Amino acid sequence: MSDRTELRRKPDRTVADRDAIHAVLDEGLVAHVGLIAGNGDTAHPVVIPMLYARDGNVMYLHGSPASRLLRTAKKGAEVCVTVTLLDALVLARSGLNHSMNYRSVIVMGTATEITDREKKVAALNRFVDHTIPGRSAQIRAAHVAEVKATTVLVLPLNECSMKARTTGVVDEPDDLDEPTWAGLIPLGLAIGEPQPDEGSAGDTVPGHVAFWSRGPGQLNGRPADPERTG
Amino acid sequence: MSDRTELRRKPDRTVADRDAIHAVLDEGLVAHVGLIAGNGDTAHPVVIPMLYARDGNVMYLHGSPASRLLRTAKKGAEVCVTVTLLDALVLARSGLNHSMNYRSVIVMGTATEITDREKKVAALNRFVDHTIPGRSAQIRAAHVAEVKATTVLVLPLNECSMKARTTGVVDEPDDLDEPTWAGLIPLGLAIGEPQPDEGSAGDTVPGHVAFWSRGPGQLNGRPADPERTG
Repeated sequence: MSDRTELRRKPDRTVADRDAIHAVLDEGLVAHVGLIAGNGDTAHPVVIPMLYARDGNVMYLHGSPASRLLRTAKKGAEVCVTVTLLDALVLARSGLNHSMNYRSVIVMGTATEITDREKKVAALNRFVDHTIPGRSAQIRAAHVAEVKATTVLVLPLNECSMKARTTGVVDEPDDLDEPTWAGLIPLGLAIGEPQPDEGSAGDTVPGHVAFWSRGPGQLNGRPADPERTG
Repeated sequence: MSDRTELRRKPDRTVADRDAIHAVLDEGLVAHVGLIAGNGDTAHPVVIPMLYARDGNVMYLHGSPASRLLRTAKKGAEVCVTVTLLDALVLARSGLNHSMNYRSVIVMGTATEITDREKKVAALNRFVDHTIPGRSAQIRAAHVAEVKATTVLVLPLNECSMKARTTGVVDEPDDLDEPTWAGLIPLGLAIGEPQPDEGSAGDTVPGHVAFWSRGPGQLNGRPADPERTG
């Protein structure tokens, strides 16, 4: 943790545990990637949603070589990558004590392009397996031209921090007799029935699709740790 | 839409309809707010998750007067506020055609502080009702000191854009015979049973809590348009 990622407000919400940081990045699907576009007087922040992958102590971003964000980032521009999981709405007895329970990780630093073909292929497989564990073993290898036509950036997880709110309602003592329902509405990721593409091979939905899950199973009605069948 | 928010990549994913932009902002719960921290050589982007509210053609951000983000933003710094809804994972027959279906709105501009007490109270009520429709009528009015101790910023929705992917799997023609399951895994917001705070008034969960929902009801098992009971 650096000075820049040390969270100034609500320090009680800061989590320093690296395993907890990795767990948030592993559960998340979309990162919000910020960078500075323009120069001097035209400088302005841009925040773009992107798929990402964690691999040990780094994270990957990828996209078209024509992407303005990737072109800017690979020149060594500072980026800020934020992944947020929303766990509950917090309904207090006063408006201003309403809040949300969440876990959020912020990664700052500069990204580097991966040019080594083997490392690039490994990173691209991590993207697929980050989002859908076990998927990369079920699909064909990437063609040489596909790998060439993709930019992959790597960002170290050195300068990162986590903030979380995980408690119940916090109300003013004077408000505890208010005739208002107070409590939490737990939130998670709802998962629909897989929808096969026309002509998709076979009638059976493979295990890595049928049992795909994320976060607490009791919220989305899925077992937390299903026995995989493929 | 301005030059800055005109999306350069994948223009087929650009949505220009203002109603569609408002619908995304109304469905979303968390915004990722980006700004430039530091100056000159120390300038770097920072992206923070925040609750927000839409009110007509503006959006509100709020927090403690001590918040670095709000202090920077209210001085007239450029901000970029991004709200993303994830609708499905797209599993293609090749790794690089994997994608996600999503709707994302990006708002750019400079925010202004609301200092007028009446407007500030109205904005604070919008926060509560954006997240939990009908809630502000169920709770006590904010105290004068609470309103004073909160900074509320307003950001016009003039410079905003939307990007969405809503289609099925797009594969290379040569891959259509691959022996791989391809299709969509629909995603949405899962909603747990409300958890009352200790001492919460009454045994009945009011309608604005019991029927709280967001997005497509078939995913989270809730009726899309419940009859409210309070």
